[in-house]
Parts: sequence; C-alpha cells; structure tokens
Amino acid sequence: MSRCKGSTMSSAMKYLSKSINTSILVSLKNGSMIRGILKSYDNHLNLILDNAEEIVTTPDGPTSSKIGKRVLIRGDNVIAISTSKIEEEDEV
Amino acid sequence: MSRCKGSTMSSAMKYLSKSINTSILVSLKNGSMIRGILKSYDNHLNLILDNAEEIVTTPDGPTSSKIGKRVLIRGDNVIAISTSKIEEEDEV
Amino acid sequence: MSRCKGSTMSSAMKYLSKSINTSILVSLKNGSMIRGILKSYDNHLNLILDNAEEIVTTPDGPTSSKIGKRVLIRGDNVIAISTSKIEEEDEV
Amino acid sequence: MSRCKGSTMSSAMKYLSKSINTSILVSLKNGSMIRGILKSYDNHLNLILDNAEEIVTTPDGPTSSKIGKRVLIRGDNVIAISTSKIEEEDEV
Amino acid sequence: MSRCKGSTMSSAMKYLSKSINTSILVSLKNGSMIRGILKSYDNHLNLILDNAEEIVTTPDGPTSSKIGKRVLIRGDNVIAISTSKIEEEDEV
Amino acid sequence: MSRCKGSTMSSAMKYLSKSINTSILVSLKNGSMIRGILKSYDNHLNLILDNAEEIVTTPDGPTSSKIGKRVLIRGDNVIAISTSKIEEEDEV
Amino acid sequence: MSRCKGSTMSSAMKYLSKSINTSILVSLKNGSMIRGILKSYDNHLNLILDNAEEIVTTPDGPTSSKIGKRVLIRGDNVIAISTSKIEEEDEV
Repeated sequence: MSRCKGSTMSSAMKYLSKSINTSILVSLKNGSMIRGILKSYDNHLNLILDNAEEIVTTPDGPTSSKIGKRVLIRGDNVIAISTSKIEEEDEV
Repeated sequence: MSRCKGSTMSSAMKYLSKSINTSILVSLKNGSMIRGILKSYDNHLNLILDNAEEIVTTPDGPTSSKIGKRVLIRGDNVIAISTSKIEEEDEV
Repeated sequence: MSRCKGSTMSSAMKYLSKSINTSILVSLKNGSMIRGILKSYDNHLNLILDNAEEIVTTPDGPTSSKIGKRVLIRGDNVIAISTSKIEEEDEV
Repeated sequence: MSRCKGSTMSSAMKYLSKSINTSILVSLKNGSMIRGILKSYDNHLNLILDNAEEIVTTPDGPTSSKIGKRVLIRGDNVIAISTSKIEEEDEV
Repeated sequence: MSRCKGSTMSSAMKYLSKSINTSILVSLKNGSMIRGILKSYDNHLNLILDNAEEIVTTPDGPTSSKIGKRVLIRGDNVIAISTSKIEEEDEV
Repeated sequence: MSRCKGSTMSSAMKYLSKSINTSILVSLKNGSMIRGILKSYDNHLNLILDNAEEIVTTPDGPTSSKIGKRVLIRGDNVIAISTSKIEEEDEV
Repeated sequence: MSRCKGSTMSSAMKYLSKSINTSILVSLKNGSMIRGILKSYDNHLNLILDNAEEIVTTPDGPTSSKIGKRVLIRGDNVIAISTSKIEEEDEV
C-alpha cells in the first residue's frame, strides 16, 4: 500500500519537494491566504511553514499580518499552492 | 490495490493524460475558475498547472489575473475540467 | 477488493454503461445542470462528457451555454443523472 | 471485506430490497424531494428510479415536475427514504 | 477487520440494540427532528423507523407531521439520538 | 489494523476513558453545546451521555433544557469536549 | 499499514511532538481560535489541551475566555496550529 500511495500522490509530492525552503502562497477553503517558507509536508498535504503571514486584500492593496514563526496547516483545508519558481526540466 | 485503483480511475486519468501540456479550464468548489497548462496530475485529481490565471466574469466580459507560474490544485476542490480538444478515436 | 467494489457499484455502473454515447443531464451539488454526451465514466462516478453545456433556467425558460467540447466532471459533485432512455428489460 | 460490508449495510439493503418496483420518496441534502419507482440500488445507497419527479411544496400544496424516465441518484446525497409499505413480519 | 469494526462501534451499537422497538428521537444535520419506532439499524447508523413523524417546533409548541410508515435514514445525517429509557445496569 | 487504530486514537481514547461517569461538555458542529454524564464512547468519538441537556447562551446567561435521559451523539459532529478534571499524572 | 501511516503523517506528528507542554494556538473551521498547553495528540490531529481558552477578537483587541481545564479537540476541525518556537535544527 505504501508503494501505491507513494505513486498516486507523486505529482503533488514532487511539487512540494521542489518548493522546500522557498516561499509559497497557500489558499485555504475558509477564504484566507497564507504565505510562508515551506519547511516540511506529508502526503495529506499537511504543511509546515516558517514565518507564516496571512495576506489580506484591502482596497489599498494586500496587507499581511504575522500568524506564527512556525505553523502547521492541515492538508484538507488547502485549495491551491502557488510558487513563482518553474523548473527547467519538464518532469514534474 | 494499485491495480484496482488504476482501473477505477481510468476515465479521469486517460482524460488528463491526453491533456498534458495543453491549456485546461478548472472550475473549483469555491466558485473560482482557473486556467493553465496542465503539467502533471495524480489519481486524486491533484493538478499542477503552469502560467495559471483566475478567470473572473465581469459585466464587461471575462478578465483574468495571474496567480502563479506553477500552481498545485488539491483534487478534492475540483468540480469540472474542460478542454477544447476532442480526440478522433472514441476510446477515452 | 476489486470484486467487492465491482459488485457494490453495479447499479450505478450498469446505468452509466447503458448511457454511453447518449445525452445525459447531470445535476451538481453547486446547483448547476450540465448536459452532454456521456463518453466514459468510472466507479467514482467521474464522467467524461462531449459537447457539454450548462443549462440555466430563466424566467423565459431554460437556456444553455457551451462549456467545453470535452469535460471531466469529478464524481463527488454529482447529485443525480437522468436520461430519457428506459430499457425494455428490467434488469438494471 | 465483502462479507463485512455486506453485514454492516444489511438494514438499509433489506429495506431497499423490499421496496424494489414500488414507489419511494427520497429526500436529498439539497432540500429537494424525489419520488419514483425503485428499480435498483447498491450499498452506497445509489438509487435508480423510474418515472422520477421532483415534489415541490407550494402554498397551494405539493406539485410535481418530471425529471426523467430513469434517474440515478448518488447515494451520498440521500437523507431519508420513505415508503408506505410495512411488511407484516418484523425482521427488517 | 470485521472484529475491529465490531469493537469500535460497540457503544453506539449497544445503545441502538437496547432501543429496538422503542420510540427514539433523531436530530439530523439539516435541522429536522424525526421521531419513530426503531426497527433496525446497522453500523453506519443507518436507521429504519416505523410510523416516523417530523417534529416541528412552533411558537405554540411542537407539532408533528407524518412522513412515512417505514423510513430509512442514512446514518451520516445523524447528529444525535435520544431515548427516555435508561437501563439499570451500567454497562452500555 | 486494530493495533494501528488503537494506537492512533490513543490520546482521545485515554481522555474519554478518564472521563467516564463524569460530566462533560460537548460542542457540536451545528453550534449547540451538550452537557451530560459520559457513560460510553468508541473510537469514532461516538458518545453516550446520561441526563443530557443543551446549554443555550442567552443575554441573561446560560440556560439549559433537557434533551433525553440517554443520548447518543455521532462522533463526526464533535468539535471539542471539555471537562474540569485534570489528572495529576502527566501521561495523557 | 502502521508503518505507512506513521511515515505519511510524519511532518505533522514531528511538529506536534516538539510542541508538547508548550502553548499552541489552534484555528478551527468554525472560525474560533483556541489557545492551550498541548498535552497529547494523535495522528488524526486530535489534540488534548490544558488550560484552554478561546481567543475572541474585539474592536478593543483580543480577549480570552476559559473553556476548560482539559479539552479534547477533534482533529478534523483543525485548520492550522501555530507556535512561536522554531527549532534550531532544520529537520522538521
């Protein structure tokens, strides 16, 4: 089963593996956006972020408020994760 | 079990397999629409999109805003995925 | 397990099997109605529809708008699927 | 596992087994009520109904509108199923 | 696994076992309250109730309306079940 | 698997084990608060409470209304359970 | 399977393991924030907190109200957990 799970999650896992120690932006099902340095993850998409801050969009543009030096986000809340880094190689 | 999973997901997986490196439009449960180039997927319908942008419908027509060079969408948020490409062969 | 799964889903699977290449109407949990030609399905009720269009009910009656030549609908969004075809034989 | 599943679902399955080819009323999580002749079911409570109609309660009493000659309802939308038939024997 | 399942659900199962053929009040996630005679159940908390009626609280007190001679309630809608019967022995 | 399940739920199970026959306060996902004597539980967090009452907060302070001598709460509705008892020993 | 589960949850589990006996802030899906001393957890993210208090943000700043000396939070309600402690070593 571990082999099965490993392979089925590989796209998400490879994506996260390449994003370790970089800044990612996480959008959550409750409507909030969290930015932080990805320190760790697991195959439920649980995420450990350092220097996490919530991004709030206001009429004057986005502002951020700190929410913790190290934050655990439970994976089932995640809608999407974005990063500005695109690898040269195609094999995600 | 991997054989079992593989067969049960085959329709969705074949669809996504044929859409690799093409532009797809993803509608999500939170009401948003995301367009991007499909780079990878897995059998939870987790998707990796490049040059992703959110499509917002306004009274003046649809507009788009960039959301990241490479985005991971967690599969359980997906309602539907569309593409304009229909294969000639019937066997999806 | 595949034997178990196969048998438990048989009613839905037989229904969909008989509807291949016919027009079906799918009602989704977000309130939308999608009509299209069923090309493929799997036992999560993931559906592949060709020439899919969304049916919107207006005061002037139902109207439709195209949403893609080939659309994948994630099965967990489905409330119901209807077709106008009733087989003569009773064994669904 | 099939033995396990079989036994755990027996109450619901026996109920549905006795209702085959009779009219049932299904209440769904989206608030709608569907009436139809039960033709088939499986242990996810997926239901196949013939001559299905939606029952809408108006100030003038309930009205019904046809929704398809044969309808598949995905079991996870079901709240309750009722029938007017009570078997004489006690063993449901 | 059947042994495992059997033991994990034992509290709920014993409770329901003692309530067979007695009147129970079921509160559902959609906000409704259903009262009826418990005829059967399974370990998903699927319930078969006879002479089921919905209890509606009005400014003039609770009123009830019949909803079917025999009703199947899908277990995942259940919030709580109450009964006025307390067994003398402590071992639930 | 039973060994696995047993160990993964041990924190919650030990907590509930120590609370048997004491009064606990349960907050549910529908916003209600239930207080009662914990008589039994299982590893889905299904709870059997005696002398259960719903706690309603009003402008004049909390009031309570009885909801049953013995109540079964389905575990998936539970947000949190509190008790005023702290064991001396640290090993929860 | 226990080995599989153990490894898949390792990021979240290691995070919680390092936070034992420290104050953590838990944000829940119902919008509330709970602060308390983490005493125990399991791999469903069920949490046991001592001296738990709910943090409410008011126009005059955050206030807190006690909710129990020892509280069990069901893991599926958790959105995120934060702590102010960052370990020196990188291996989360």
